[in-house]
Amino acid sequence: MTVAIIGVGLIGGSMAIALKEKSIAQRIIGIDTSKEHAEKAMQIGLVDEIKTLEEAVKESDLIVLSVPVDAVENLLPKVLDLIDQQIVMDVGSIKEPILEIIKDHPNKVRFVATHPMWGTEYSGPQAAVRGAFEGKATVICEKESSDEDALQLVEDLYSKLGMQIVFMNAREHDVHVAYVSHISHITSFALANTVLEKEKEEDAIFSLASGGFESTVRLAKSNPGMWVPIFMQNKDNVLDVLNEHISQLRKFKACLEKGNEEYLKELIENANGIRKIIK
Amino acid sequence: MTVAIIGVGLIGGSMAIALKEKSIAQRIIGIDTSKEHAEKAMQIGLVDEIKTLEEAVKESDLIVLSVPVDAVENLLPKVLDLIDQQIVMDVGSIKEPILEIIKDHPNKVRFVATHPMWGTEYSGPQAAVRGAFEGKATVICEKESSDEDALQLVEDLYSKLGMQIVFMNAREHDVHVAYVSHISHITSFALANTVLEKEKEEDAIFSLASGGFESTVRLAKSNPGMWVPIFMQNKDNVLDVLNEHISQLRKFKACLEKGNEEYLKELIENANGIRKIIK
Repeated sequence: MTVAIIGVGLIGGSMAIALKEKSIAQRIIGIDTSKEHAEKAMQIGLVDEIKTLEEAVKESDLIVLSVPVDAVENLLPKVLDLIDQQIVMDVGSIKEPILEIIKDHPNKVRFVATHPMWGTEYSGPQAAVRGAFEGKATVICEKESSDEDALQLVEDLYSKLGMQIVFMNAREHDVHVAYVSHISHITSFALANTVLEKEKEEDAIFSLASGGFESTVRLAKSNPGMWVPIFMQNKDNVLDVLNEHISQLRKFKACLEKGNEEYLKELIENANGIRKIIK
Repeated sequence: MTVAIIGVGLIGGSMAIALKEKSIAQRIIGIDTSKEHAEKAMQIGLVDEIKTLEEAVKESDLIVLSVPVDAVENLLPKVLDLIDQQIVMDVGSIKEPILEIIKDHPNKVRFVATHPMWGTEYSGPQAAVRGAFEGKATVICEKESSDEDALQLVEDLYSKLGMQIVFMNAREHDVHVAYVSHISHITSFALANTVLEKEKEEDAIFSLASGGFESTVRLAKSNPGMWVPIFMQNKDNVLDVLNEHISQLRKFKACLEKGNEEYLKELIENANGIRKIIK
């Protein structure tokens, strides 16, 4: 089939590679508002051609929206206006606001809301990688709102990419990603700012940075163009988690202030429970 | 030479492997208060024999203290009491309190205070790894307080392990590690507790956990026996950094509460500055 990928960056580009490699798409059309990204995507062979949105939608069987979540809000109704029987899917990190926007659109049944749980701290077409989605989880939201053939095609696609499909409603999804993705990014950004603040005073500090520091601060390299809209659209859930996180940090603070070794040990032992969950 | 390693866990065990591999030690004597750890260390070949502290110190040229920092406080004066011309080094994460304790000891010139900047979230002899220290930084503190031959031997040892030596005074060291190591562990422990709190309510949450989450929460698997004493001994510095970190998190919170996208973007762009520092 022919697939149009709107936004040929990290996710769209990696999706393009996978769709070709698994012979899911025979032809991939790229669309990108950044001329530079579009040219780069052609140059490194992510897409077969670059077209306008209108042309691309017309010539495709499946349209994949892989743009920042604020752009999805504008773009999705526009794409649904343009389609006939084509299938549309997104890969964005937030689901409730997007589904709300199209809830009265006559073509909304052609849309499948998805979120493959993969990413890196890099962005742009040159950040696209081979084998990106293999073995990871992907969420399909509100599947009962989509036409059966649309849902089937998207399920087949993700299965062929080697992903484990999890079904959820949009509300659940948005709460869960606040916990397992968004808060990690906020703590990482804040940690980078904490340390960079100090670095102004002390030049030598980073010669000591070891692997532990690097892994907790790695996500702080992530792109604001992607993350500002995610945090804003998932504001309430992210605030809930952030408040909980600050209150957890305050427990550590209280232990240190009071010299309470027993409780500190308890907090760490509790945190060790994460071993059950991540290998 | 013969090296005594007191505490044959993650660091001591990895050191034992490296000392043998680089032909720095011909014979390694292990000492461990845990009979289980001592037996395991023999069984997997980390050490050549297990002896009592007194025997081991007597028969060794170099004594390496690789026990939790609260144990170093008790053990170091005891070892210095036992030595004649032997050289003693530690590998602990905190330096000021330890140097304070031995400041009037007649044998303190035989001691070299060091901190190789390497570790993992695992512990015990079975956590020891080959090639652990290669390419990493190591700190030597207050080098002017050690005898020249002692300092020379320790410098040679770290050079042969492939480590880059950084000299610092103890006070500087303790401040820096609060920023580049201790705070990462606290945020990771607190993040684990935040998410585990939620998990009580929602079982499905972790099916979605992806690489970003895993890297920020990995350190939360670290051992309280090691970290409680580190945090307690470096309390003032860790509290400084923790307060700064909480205030950085509050900036993110304020942005979300007020819907201030511009400032949120600014905070993230500032955090992106970490790219200059970690690759």
